[in-house]
Amino acid sequence: MTDSLIATLAARLGPAHVLTDATDLAPHLAETRGLYRGEALAVLRPRDTAEVAFAVRACAEARVPVVAHGGNTGLVGGGVPFGGVVISLARLDRVRAVDPLDATITVEAGCVLASVQAAADAAGMLFPLSLASEGSCRIGGNLATNAGGTAVLAYGNARELTLGLEVVLADGQVWNGLRALRKDNSGYDLKNLFVGSEGTLGIITAAVLRLHPKPASKATAFLGLASARAALDAFGALRARLGPRLTAFEYVPRFPLEVVLRHLPGAVRPLEGDHPSYALVEVSSPAPDADEELEARLGELIESGLVADATLARSEAQAAALWRLRESLSEMQGHEGGSIKHDVSVPVSRVAEFLERATEACEAAMPGVRVCPFGHFGDGNIHFNLTQPVGAEKAAFLAEWPRFNRIVHDIVHAMDGSIAAEHGVGLIKRDELPRYKDPVALDLMRRLKGALDPHGLLNPGKVLAAEGAPEAFPARGGAAARSGTAA
Amino acid sequence: MTDSLIATLAARLGPAHVLTDATDLAPHLAETRGLYRGEALAVLRPRDTAEVAFAVRACAEARVPVVAHGGNTGLVGGGVPFGGVVISLARLDRVRAVDPLDATITVEAGCVLASVQAAADAAGMLFPLSLASEGSCRIGGNLATNAGGTAVLAYGNARELTLGLEVVLADGQVWNGLRALRKDNSGYDLKNLFVGSEGTLGIITAAVLRLHPKPASKATAFLGLASARAALDAFGALRARLGPRLTAFEYVPRFPLEVVLRHLPGAVRPLEGDHPSYALVEVSSPAPDADEELEARLGELIESGLVADATLARSEAQAAALWRLRESLSEMQGHEGGSIKHDVSVPVSRVAEFLERATEACEAAMPGVRVCPFGHFGDGNIHFNLTQPVGAEKAAFLAEWPRFNRIVHDIVHAMDGSIAAEHGVGLIKRDELPRYKDPVALDLMRRLKGALDPHGLLNPGKVLAAEGAPEAFPARGGAAARSGTAA
Repeated sequence: MTDSLIATLAARLGPAHVLTDATDLAPHLAETRGLYRGEALAVLRPRDTAEVAFAVRACAEARVPVVAHGGNTGLVGGGVPFGGVVISLARLDRVRAVDPLDATITVEAGCVLASVQAAADAAGMLFPLSLASEGSCRIGGNLATNAGGTAVLAYGNARELTLGLEVVLADGQVWNGLRALRKDNSGYDLKNLFVGSEGTLGIITAAVLRLHPKPASKATAFLGLASARAALDAFGALRARLGPRLTAFEYVPRFPLEVVLRHLPGAVRPLEGDHPSYALVEVSSPAPDADEELEARLGELIESGLVADATLARSEAQAAALWRLRESLSEMQGHEGGSIKHDVSVPVSRVAEFLERATEACEAAMPGVRVCPFGHFGDGNIHFNLTQPVGAEKAAFLAEWPRFNRIVHDIVHAMDGSIAAEHGVGLIKRDELPRYKDPVALDLMRRLKGALDPHGLLNPGKVLAAEGAPEAFPARGGAAARSGTAA
Repeated sequence: MTDSLIATLAARLGPAHVLTDATDLAPHLAETRGLYRGEALAVLRPRDTAEVAFAVRACAEARVPVVAHGGNTGLVGGGVPFGGVVISLARLDRVRAVDPLDATITVEAGCVLASVQAAADAAGMLFPLSLASEGSCRIGGNLATNAGGTAVLAYGNARELTLGLEVVLADGQVWNGLRALRKDNSGYDLKNLFVGSEGTLGIITAAVLRLHPKPASKATAFLGLASARAALDAFGALRARLGPRLTAFEYVPRFPLEVVLRHLPGAVRPLEGDHPSYALVEVSSPAPDADEELEARLGELIESGLVADATLARSEAQAAALWRLRESLSEMQGHEGGSIKHDVSVPVSRVAEFLERATEACEAAMPGVRVCPFGHFGDGNIHFNLTQPVGAEKAAFLAEWPRFNRIVHDIVHAMDGSIAAEHGVGLIKRDELPRYKDPVALDLMRRLKGALDPHGLLNPGKVLAAEGAPEAFPARGGAAARSGTAA
């Protein structure tokens, strides 16, 4: 049965694009953090939507599960196959159209995010989705996980940037919803069902995305703040004055800043003196006035006492250096030992309260633990990370991950937040969902899954549990496997 | 059976809130344009979500259909009941919370749109959704139809303004998805399934909505243009320079302007001279510079020849007078006789081409017909209306509606547009969908309907056809009924 399926696929896709060799499969069986290792019959590399549809139909007829892969940069184990085939979208990498007047770009799922940004830029427009892995993640994966990143404050998540989709359904049918319309109420909203469904309801093969006018000027500043509360007040004041021109408000407390200054080659302290909290602020303007605008606002904030000190980047190089500090936080944290991570969100108005409560609870739970939170403060989205106590044993620390999950997620839940803010559910948070999610919502999700994928062949066991699917957490190999990664 | 259901409902809701008298039912059986007249066993007026859930559960057990009503201002027959009960959400009219820092407002479905705007305004914030019926439509209906209006260009449709929902499902269960999060990827996106589903998948009882900072200044101008093409070029130039500060770009050709000047009491010609096309432009700024910003941009447009002439409103009263011209178009058109209407959208880049092609085709189809299109040009959304030839018989003209549907909708479809842009499908466009919609999309819609409303009890026969449901178009009573309305 399997041999016949592989032969059928090889005949259509070409033998060179049906990989079965262990070496070829390897990169598709693990994920970035090394938390899971799966297995697959084959990795398919179709070249277009018709080939994806053919492959999915053939697999559906053989009742063989299918896991879609973009850049395989996900952080929740959502792309790890446990049997079945992997369909890599990497060869569907054409930019089909760019229309500046329409402010849209039509791309195939395998386009690397940075190349989508570049194509928009070449047309004089901005595709604002931006995240650390943009050089290797692919837009299909960004859409399948409803990616967030640093530009959500002004431009929204991947969802808000999506106007239309082309999707291969579980039975191999193709839904062509590639429409570039700002207003369309001709029936149920199908596209938002697939965006963020992590490959469990359909496989996105192409999309029409929204572009924005390129700002005429940008300004970047680094703020010293007395506390998370002060950061929230400063954020509120800036947003009230700047409206949609406030395009980033990233939060960095003292400890993560010290970590990155200690370990990042060439890093320079951005602000003299020592502050409990910092924020990286960016203003974008359609006029050439971003610098003077931000300078004026910072002056007001310092005068009113909301901000203790601030520095404005005086060149693109200085701005890039500030962003490099922010973007290196996750990687540099690894130099301090084991790291336990939570990607959570709360209502923006409660983000300071969340930071206080979660910090206190984690420090009480493990003396010496170094709370290392940072992130997209203006979206209420904090990467609430914990660095091991100095001198602790890394594996033993990482074994405490489930205990800290309970502490942090309980607080998030009590504050009407989300335990899966921008990285998705995948495998790692799948079994946390039934604990925190409204049972009616879970029931609706199961009904939708049943309606769109009745045989449970699309990325089985991700987001929702499935019979025979792998254990979610602790991962295969437990703490030992987890300790092998920079996490 | 029916008597027992009514008794059960009266016992819980109170007899005063289970209306069965013909006089009380009447306003709930017809819709604004008088195209349809339905029938209902009763109109229920629950006071809170628990009572809505009770009523829906009782009806579900008795297999009695349920049609939800907000302000009953819809334009596509979506709220007309054909048997079963009407559940009016009018008594669920509390603003549950406003949080300026979080930039959210939590409202019940029965809040009148204008009162949501007012509550936001009182908190120093902006709820941007704005449309002609805002004094009587209710927010639950706005969400159920994914309402558009004049502020979509910068702020999006009702969908983009929705963060969370509370929904009563077909079996009476309540999904509490009232979350105020900017980032939440904890499972499938349920809220977008209900937004725009016109009461056929669930009944929205409350919502968390996004607020925006109130602009510090606004400027309004009226532009004279050589053609629809010139309007498109001017729009592109303005958006490139103004970005999100361009908050409206409404299109009015010569004929609709002449109609409104002829019939609207107190209307004053906004611009000397005669132009083939006009546009109403609004700029909103977080700084107090909107006037000088718009004046500078208009100067550039006139100098470059894109705009023939322009006038800037010099006071709030002048701005209001310009908006009054725009907002009276639909009503004033009725003074010229019968009107056949199409609410359609195309990609923004093709809106001028659409206007040219559709105008030519309609004029060729009926000598003397007066094409009267206007609308949300910057969203690609045109109300492509036709006014009867001078001296024609109104009923005979309106009887041509299906023929003009075919002409206009065929052109829209060929241009990758939508035949239902902002008013929805309801009953009037239901049987047009199978002609124009991707069959795979229709199949997906039916599967979703089956999964969420397996007995077909929620607003049956709307959006999707249902066994035993009423004929869609021509409406009951045919042209005679239609001629009774200002349409």
